[in-house]
Amino acid sequence: MLGLAILANNSAIPAFDRPPTAQALTVADQVFLIDCGEGTQMQIVRYKIRGSRINHIFISHLHGDHYFGLIGLITSMGLSGRSVPLHIYGPSILKKVINVHLEAASTNLPFQMYFHAHPDSFSKITEDEKVEVWCFPVQHRIPCYGFVFREKKLPRKIDADAVKLYQVPFSFFGSLQQGKDYTTTDGDIIENGLLTIKNTEGRSYAFSADTIYDPSLCEYFEGVDILYHESTYMKLDEDKATQRFHSTSEQAAMIALQCKAKRLLLGHFSSRYEDLTEMLGEATSVFENTDLALEGVTYLV
Amino acid sequence: MLGLAILANNSAIPAFDRPPTAQALTVADQVFLIDCGEGTQMQIVRYKIRGSRINHIFISHLHGDHYFGLIGLITSMGLSGRSVPLHIYGPSILKKVINVHLEAASTNLPFQMYFHAHPDSFSKITEDEKVEVWCFPVQHRIPCYGFVFREKKLPRKIDADAVKLYQVPFSFFGSLQQGKDYTTTDGDIIENGLLTIKNTEGRSYAFSADTIYDPSLCEYFEGVDILYHESTYMKLDEDKATQRFHSTSEQAAMIALQCKAKRLLLGHFSSRYEDLTEMLGEATSVFENTDLALEGVTYLV
Repeated sequence: MLGLAILANNSAIPAFDRPPTAQALTVADQVFLIDCGEGTQMQIVRYKIRGSRINHIFISHLHGDHYFGLIGLITSMGLSGRSVPLHIYGPSILKKVINVHLEAASTNLPFQMYFHAHPDSFSKITEDEKVEVWCFPVQHRIPCYGFVFREKKLPRKIDADAVKLYQVPFSFFGSLQQGKDYTTTDGDIIENGLLTIKNTEGRSYAFSADTIYDPSLCEYFEGVDILYHESTYMKLDEDKATQRFHSTSEQAAMIALQCKAKRLLLGHFSSRYEDLTEMLGEATSVFENTDLALEGVTYLV
Repeated sequence: MLGLAILANNSAIPAFDRPPTAQALTVADQVFLIDCGEGTQMQIVRYKIRGSRINHIFISHLHGDHYFGLIGLITSMGLSGRSVPLHIYGPSILKKVINVHLEAASTNLPFQMYFHAHPDSFSKITEDEKVEVWCFPVQHRIPCYGFVFREKKLPRKIDADAVKLYQVPFSFFGSLQQGKDYTTTDGDIIENGLLTIKNTEGRSYAFSADTIYDPSLCEYFEGVDILYHESTYMKLDEDKATQRFHSTSEQAAMIALQCKAKRLLLGHFSSRYEDLTEMLGEATSVFENTDLALEGVTYLV
C-alpha cells in the first residue's frame, strides 16, 4: 500500500491559493518527494510530512513551478541538523543550479548529498527492498521526465493448514515464500502451489510529469494502479495545450484508458481556471475513475 | 509619506506561519521590494501589493531566507507578460545565480532586467525625483548590505498672503520654491524667507539587514524616521547572536537610541521563539518607540 499526498497542484504562477507542483509518496517508512515547487518546505510542515523520512527527491524538469522550492528545502534540512544522506534525481543541469546557491551562501551541508542525473531512456534509477523507481523521458518544451514507482513483488503467503498437513519444518518457510517446492525426507516433491497462497500484487504509481498528449508513454505504466497525468488545460484550449507541450483533461483520460490504469488523478491546473468542476467532467466522460489531485489530500494506492 | 508593508519577518527556516524576510516600501507610485524570501510572490498576492509597481528589488545578502523567492517572482513577472524594465540590486554573485536558473529553463524574459552589484562602501545606488536609495555594508557571516531610503527635500511652500503683498508674479513661484529671493522691478530684494514656508521634512527609512551589533552603522542612518533592525535573538542568547553575526532585540534598541531614530521595528525572528512579547519588552526597556514588524501590517513612515 502506498500513500500519495498532494502537497500542491498548480502550474506556472501560484494562484487561487494553489501553490505549484509537489507530491509526497509514502512507501513503508520512506517518503519519496516528487517535484518541489516554491513553498514546498512550508507545505511539508503544513501537511505534517516527516521531513526526516525524505531521502529521495525526484525533479521532473527545470521549469520553476517544479523545482524553485528545492534549494530552500535542502538548506532548511541542513539548518535543522540533518545528517542522513539525501539523494536528488533530476536533469543534469540541476546539480549546477544547486551548487551555485550553496556557493553563494558559503553553505556546507551537514549531510551527504548525492546527485543522480536522469538517464536518456526508460531505466530503473533506484530501488530498495520494498520499491523500485523507473524514469522515462516525456515530450515537453525542455527536457522532462516522468517516474513510475513499483512495489516489489510480495512473497507468497504460507498456507498454515497445508504446511501442518504436509509437516513442513519452519526452516523451509523462507524458500516456500520465494516460490520453491518442498521435498520431504522420503524424497516426495510437494508443489509450492499446495503450500502457499499468492500475495496481493505490489502496487504502482506513475507520475507522468508535464507532457504533450503522447499515447506512446503508455508502455511505461501499463496497468498502473494510479496514474497522475497533467491536465493544464480544458478541451476549449486544446490548441494552446499542444502548442505549449501540455495536455487537456480529456487527453489525460484517454491515456488512462489506453494504459488500463485503475485510477486517474489530474493536476497541474492552469491559473486561468478557478473552478475545476468542468475540467473534471471532461475527463470522467472518457475515463470514469478520475479525480482532481486536491492539495492536502492523501490518495491510497 | 512612505508606506512600509511587512510581507514576511522570520529568519532561516519558515516557522509558526512566519515566512522569511520580505518588505515592500511604497513611495508615491513606486514599490521598492526589500529582500525576497521563499514565498514572497504569494505574499505579494496575499497582501495586494501591485506587482506592476515593483521596478526595483534590493537583496541584502545571499542567505536563502533573504532571496530564495527572487527567481520565482522574476519568472512569474515574465509569465504575466511584464514589459517594464526591472532593476535588481544585490551582491555581485546574485547575477550568476539568476542566470543559471534562466538558462536551465531556456527562459527569455519579456522585459529588460538590469542588475546592479552592491558597492563596497556607503553609496547612493539609485534615485528618482522623489527618493534616493543608499547602500551600506554591514558585518555578517557573508557579504551583506543595508539600505536607506530618503525622500528628497520637498520644495518650500508659497506663502499666498506674502506673494500677494509683495506682488510677485506667478512666473517666479518656481524659483521661490527652490529657495531663491525675489528681486522687484525697482531692484529691491525680497528675501525668500518672507515669501515661502518651510515644507515638511522628507521621510526616511533604514533597513539594516542581518548584522552583528555594530554602533558604527549609526552614521548611515542618523535621525531616520523608522529603523528596521534585525532582532534574531533575545538577551538570553546574546552569545549565540554574536557568534552568528546577529543581534538581540536589546542591541537593536541600543542602535535606535544611538542613531536617534524616531521609531524602531524589530524583525528576522529566530524560529526558536514562538511568542515574541518578551523579546519586544527587552527592546522597549531601552528604546520605547519600538514595535515588532508584523506580517501583513503596513507602517507609515
